[in-house]
Amino acid sequence: MTTVNTNINFVPDGYKPIVHSAPYGALIGPVYERVDEEDSVRAFRVKKQHTNSLGYLHGGMLMSFADIVLAQAVIRTGRGLTATVRMVTEFMAPGRLGDWVEGRASVSKSTGTLLFAEGQFQVGASLIMIASGVFVVPSDRNIKSE
Amino acid sequence: MTTVNTNINFVPDGYKPIVHSAPYGALIGPVYERVDEEDSVRAFRVKKQHTNSLGYLHGGMLMSFADIVLAQAVIRTGRGLTATVRMVTEFMAPGRLGDWVEGRASVSKSTGTLLFAEGQFQVGASLIMIASGVFVVPSDRNIKSE
Repeated sequence: MTTVNTNINFVPDGYKPIVHSAPYGALIGPVYERVDEEDSVRAFRVKKQHTNSLGYLHGGMLMSFADIVLAQAVIRTGRGLTATVRMVTEFMAPGRLGDWVEGRASVSKSTGTLLFAEGQFQVGASLIMIASGVFVVPSDRNIKSE
Repeated sequence: MTTVNTNINFVPDGYKPIVHSAPYGALIGPVYERVDEEDSVRAFRVKKQHTNSLGYLHGGMLMSFADIVLAQAVIRTGRGLTATVRMVTEFMAPGRLGDWVEGRASVSKSTGTLLFAEGQFQVGASLIMIASGVFVVPSDRNIKSE
């Protein structure tokens, strides 16, 4: 039998808070991380500030977390600076106040200019969202034309 | 010649802050709204807390704003309670600190159980993102099975 601790401040074993280099990450966080040989996972606890008017986890928070998790998978490839150009998210089940939401992602394909990443988001064993993202390596020309 | 005021606290004429019924909206807001006969638009000013580690508007913030704008278009149809089941976002240009980001959305199709909404997000005349979302009207059975 698995016991799930939904204490609003409980952090499961092995997780440490990440240092948010993005001010937006600090605003919506804290986000936690657990990295070992088998797995790299990020997670957060659904607190009241993450909820919608019905008391469920807000879709915007889950999409923001997906962007953080997929971007980290892209960073792990060592390709350097990239920008999100497309994100697709499928919401499968609601998140609830107190839930510990875990996200795992990997890069399935990397070309000269594009990286394709996919992620799964779970509460316990229950999948609540999948996400896929396309990231671009900015060319010198792209950067100049900004 | 159009003059753009990027004063971090400047709110253009006709916009009023919305009352955030979602705690998450209050966390990432304030979001503003301007509604008149021709147009319904929501907007926010990119402040430091909305930026990524490079100083640009964080993709998560723009996706959160898209969810708020598209959901509002769905609410305007009067169909009552719905939930986001899919969101697709295409990032076309970076948002910058001080930008006033406007979002407009409409529902293009409504069936017995699903609503399809599309939105455009601009800074001045420049399109920075488009989004499309699918929303579901929960059935009694869906609500019970949660």
